[in-house]
Amino acid sequence: MRTTVGDFLISRLKEVGIGHVLGVPGDFNLQFLDQICRDGGLSFVGCCNELNAGYAADGYARIRGASALLLTYGVGDLSAICAIAGAAAEHVPVICITGAPPLEKMRKGLPLHHTLGTGDYADVMTCFAQFTAAQARLTPETAAAEIDRVIRTAVEMRRPVYLQLPSDVSHVEIEAPDTPLRAGRATSGERLAAALAHLTRIWDAASAPAILVDMDAERFGYAGELLDLAEATGTRFAALMTGKAILPEAHELSAGLYGGAASAPETRALVEGSDCLLVAGPRLIEVNSSHFTVRLPTETVALGDHSVEIAGETYYGVEPKALLTAFLARLPAAGRRSSNRRNAAGEAAFGGAQPLTQARLWPRMANFIRPDDVVLAESGTSNIGLTREVLPADVQYIASNIWGAIGYTLPATLGTCLAAPERRSLLFIGDGSFQLTAQELSTLLRLDRKPVIFLLNNRGYTIERFILGMTDAYNDVANWDYAGLPAVLSDRGNFYVRVAATEAELDAALALAEDADRLVLIELRLDAFDAPETLRRFGPATAEFDYGPLGPQRQTAA
Amino acid sequence: MRTTVGDFLISRLKEVGIGHVLGVPGDFNLQFLDQICRDGGLSFVGCCNELNAGYAADGYARIRGASALLLTYGVGDLSAICAIAGAAAEHVPVICITGAPPLEKMRKGLPLHHTLGTGDYADVMTCFAQFTAAQARLTPETAAAEIDRVIRTAVEMRRPVYLQLPSDVSHVEIEAPDTPLRAGRATSGERLAAALAHLTRIWDAASAPAILVDMDAERFGYAGELLDLAEATGTRFAALMTGKAILPEAHELSAGLYGGAASAPETRALVEGSDCLLVAGPRLIEVNSSHFTVRLPTETVALGDHSVEIAGETYYGVEPKALLTAFLARLPAAGRRSSNRRNAAGEAAFGGAQPLTQARLWPRMANFIRPDDVVLAESGTSNIGLTREVLPADVQYIASNIWGAIGYTLPATLGTCLAAPERRSLLFIGDGSFQLTAQELSTLLRLDRKPVIFLLNNRGYTIERFILGMTDAYNDVANWDYAGLPAVLSDRGNFYVRVAATEAELDAALALAEDADRLVLIELRLDAFDAPETLRRFGPATAEFDYGPLGPQRQTAA
Repeated sequence: MRTTVGDFLISRLKEVGIGHVLGVPGDFNLQFLDQICRDGGLSFVGCCNELNAGYAADGYARIRGASALLLTYGVGDLSAICAIAGAAAEHVPVICITGAPPLEKMRKGLPLHHTLGTGDYADVMTCFAQFTAAQARLTPETAAAEIDRVIRTAVEMRRPVYLQLPSDVSHVEIEAPDTPLRAGRATSGERLAAALAHLTRIWDAASAPAILVDMDAERFGYAGELLDLAEATGTRFAALMTGKAILPEAHELSAGLYGGAASAPETRALVEGSDCLLVAGPRLIEVNSSHFTVRLPTETVALGDHSVEIAGETYYGVEPKALLTAFLARLPAAGRRSSNRRNAAGEAAFGGAQPLTQARLWPRMANFIRPDDVVLAESGTSNIGLTREVLPADVQYIASNIWGAIGYTLPATLGTCLAAPERRSLLFIGDGSFQLTAQELSTLLRLDRKPVIFLLNNRGYTIERFILGMTDAYNDVANWDYAGLPAVLSDRGNFYVRVAATEAELDAALALAEDADRLVLIELRLDAFDAPETLRRFGPATAEFDYGPLGPQRQTAA
Repeated sequence: MRTTVGDFLISRLKEVGIGHVLGVPGDFNLQFLDQICRDGGLSFVGCCNELNAGYAADGYARIRGASALLLTYGVGDLSAICAIAGAAAEHVPVICITGAPPLEKMRKGLPLHHTLGTGDYADVMTCFAQFTAAQARLTPETAAAEIDRVIRTAVEMRRPVYLQLPSDVSHVEIEAPDTPLRAGRATSGERLAAALAHLTRIWDAASAPAILVDMDAERFGYAGELLDLAEATGTRFAALMTGKAILPEAHELSAGLYGGAASAPETRALVEGSDCLLVAGPRLIEVNSSHFTVRLPTETVALGDHSVEIAGETYYGVEPKALLTAFLARLPAAGRRSSNRRNAAGEAAFGGAQPLTQARLWPRMANFIRPDDVVLAESGTSNIGLTREVLPADVQYIASNIWGAIGYTLPATLGTCLAAPERRSLLFIGDGSFQLTAQELSTLLRLDRKPVIFLLNNRGYTIERFILGMTDAYNDVANWDYAGLPAVLSDRGNFYVRVAATEAELDAALALAEDADRLVLIELRLDAFDAPETLRRFGPATAEFDYGPLGPQRQTAA
């Protein structure tokens, strides 16, 4: 069919489930913005800056399965590359589109603004090639094929991709396919049969099978199959912290979190003592493995990206989901088990004039969370505090555990609110992190979104304090009047703000927030040197790991 | 001498004139922060986020000649890479130091947080290699030599550089030189003599010599020599917009701005008709050359980076400053000429209840500017509006003309305030730009800095409106209560805020700001569709250049 490059790109974005394009306008992308606006099926959401737009796109893609980010060349896309690298680390398919300088000028090597002024047009592309699974500079000759290749790669590999759309190319008419984009990879029947046979053999021989969940179970869409398998066979499951809440944590088969040496003994025994461990991924780094103390059994079935490794043998060209589906087909169907176990802690005796403490805060927060909520937990205190809590079923728990970028979750909340307006988005973020990307609160208010934001004000980078420099000024941040900020950013009163320093004040604020019809910002006043118990242990261990025997943490301790 | 890697790096930073390290703490750099704090001669200034810290470092280096930026690996340095690329484009020596993961762990290829989790430790370095003049990952074996090589490159080439300081390396003792870092390149005597002879020959034969200034005259420190030459010989000078205010614009020898076809006829005749044109750089892009209509004469002396090109012949190994000094030595000394011409426009009849307009605003602003002020003009309306105004002598005019990143100047103002606390820093910035990096106002207030901030509130990206989408929503931004923001960020009342919608209100605000003892934020309320005359022409020309004959700007016009 005849269409323009820009219109074809728009049609493919819609086809993979994208309804909003996040970004920042710039002279090299206005012509494509014009096409988006005329299309009518896709909304552009302007963010305050590009990094925020990138994080918002990440949040959006975690719910919708893909997202689109529109930036301008150099100043725009490079400002967001940290978010793209984060999406790569966390396996999130963000389609990053840059409005690039006119193709004709790039081909001539003309020095232009938003470049180094040297005629080099390879530098930005080289950067994005480090962190994206596919890249292309669109030309009229190749646009149709390249758009399909790159978008398909994003969707199939669950990774960010990068497209440069030169400003004079968007409106060029091309011949483009009118067939659907085929996303979803074909599993080889022969290889699947071999893998299934191998899996069946060791599973049937096992006396202690178990399941270990990591992020890829959600990203590649086979969490449901894992749960079905567990329930059909009564197999217990544990999760890495990077796979938190993907299977229901309150489920009677859940054995909680596993992370090597730091795990509960029974969870450790379940995983390490299994004689057939089905594991998604896993994506092991020092943070989710208690500094590489995870010990997986020999008889491990590792579900990978279009491959499965069974007891050391690798089967390429096999989708884990296809393997699990085939495996389930031979099992009798089983009824659902109970997923309704609730937190015991924090139920009772919360309230009164006692100051908020980290020890009592997180169980209370967990009880505020309902099934189907989207929970965004900022790296540091919030993620560490919530990780220990058992969350209800069907909560989507969003954190940046591998990339660990602070400031991520506030803009990501914009993304989740756009992607799932019918669900509650709950954000837990500390003051230090909030300040990195604070202005995106403006966009949430401009668009009348209704997240509940818990802002932990403890006047600094708490996680850093516990690693090094507990009282050093470099870990302090300015003490803003956070509760005053929404009124600066919106003159429409479309928000509630509350400040809670005591348990009773928090309870009152939670009652207000329960089903609020507008954005709620609750500032929690916490002691600067209080921290969740896990963080108190994590800090010194991190200092040892990072700085080694010559490090200052030993001098400080002396 | 015996010292640690970190302490040696600190000593070199101080040696090149750096007094403050800008950045954001992270677990991989806390150990170096600890060393900085113990040193006492260097202050760490924590910023709200890394991009802002990078822009602040750029502003600092433009005054002090170099700056240091301290970030953490991946999430930190990638967030600032746009600022580093900007420093490369604008020839600003920012020394970017990343606290990297432990060397031992990187050597083993262990997957860690703040990485993709694949054991790849080349990706971030590859990105920075695109935009920095030298890079190194410091190891105990090579640190002493690499620190000197990299810092010397920054200072000599006026370019950003990149150092990775692994977290377990800072405290390792090494043998380091106790001799000073030799910065400043030796000019070859023989080549200098040849270049001098050539220059003298064409200069003496010329009947219409002229000087054209660009940014490198300031960056490489020979603006004073150019002025001396002009005054000693009565030679008139013009400036590219990228070289604005480096030589005094009110000087009787100044012929104003030259930029090709858009220039005043007499300036164009001076430059294009010269038979010996001495030119710094030049860094010609579409923006400062009226879309490549600059025509330099054949007899051009182009002062480069450690090289000079004279009428087509290149002399490598010659510093422009050394050549100018040698050339000046053969001339009789001349007295200084007058630099006191003032703007005529805007002197009279400003005031009253008439609403602010772009046409009358900028001449009034120019008259507020005093000699020795630091003027930061944000890309877009502010820079375009101020560029046409004649500024007093010794003003340092800071803009991002080549890189053109919006959001740059607010954090850069933090840098200039730290670098030159005795000078007035005046910031001119639009609302759209302000929102990108707004939180850095917090750091200015936390440190009791006293810039005067002119915030042009016209509810959108005005420069984009005039390129495409004049009334389209994607060019709108949320309308903040800007005047309310300082009170949210600081509870110490260390600021004044004023809102001016009329000329009388602006006059009153300027009287307050004239010698204020604290930060002043003046919000200027302007019509959303008003723009400086230059911008009204620049917009459509840019649309034609960017989108070409098929672009939507032609459909809109139809």
